[in-house]
Amino acid sequence: MSRFRVSVHIVPRQGILDPQGKAVADALHTLGFRGVADARIGRHVVLDVSAVSPEAAGAAVREMCDRLLANPVTEDYEIAGVETLP
Amino acid sequence: MSRFRVSVHIVPRQGILDPQGKAVADALHTLGFRGVADARIGRHVVLDVSAVSPEAAGAAVREMCDRLLANPVTEDYEIAGVETLP
Repeated sequence: MSRFRVSVHIVPRQGILDPQGKAVADALHTLGFRGVADARIGRHVVLDVSAVSPEAAGAAVREMCDRLLANPVTEDYEIAGVETLP
Repeated sequence: MSRFRVSVHIVPRQGILDPQGKAVADALHTLGFRGVADARIGRHVVLDVSAVSPEAAGAAVREMCDRLLANPVTEDYEIAGVETLP
């Protein structure tokens, strides 16, 4: 078994209202950042897991997302990276 | 001016207690995912901004992080990617 650091992005599904992103975009406009057209806020989850291979680590994290980390109704997730730990 | 999609990771600074990550790690253990040694939860922010170049877009987003998005006492941020929008 090796140790891997797996990063996951969990983001509001396209078309779903993102009130936190809307609030951030409005606050940025108020601060003078006029060039911001849209902001979306998701979660960046970093998990240190033991697994036999990077593929197994990724598969385990996908199962964690399905069972706990992501809300399947409102959120999408993607594995952003799998890094081998020393 | 072109449009760019800039992704930022905002994560709890190393050494700072991350209660949300601790709760997620404990919940994953309860669900039977024994291989999880550590979980850290940050934010994944995606901003659509207008700028003259990708570098200018990244610089603008760094300023937004300094002024609004990240808490400089407890959080670190990094620009994860800058993508040109059509």
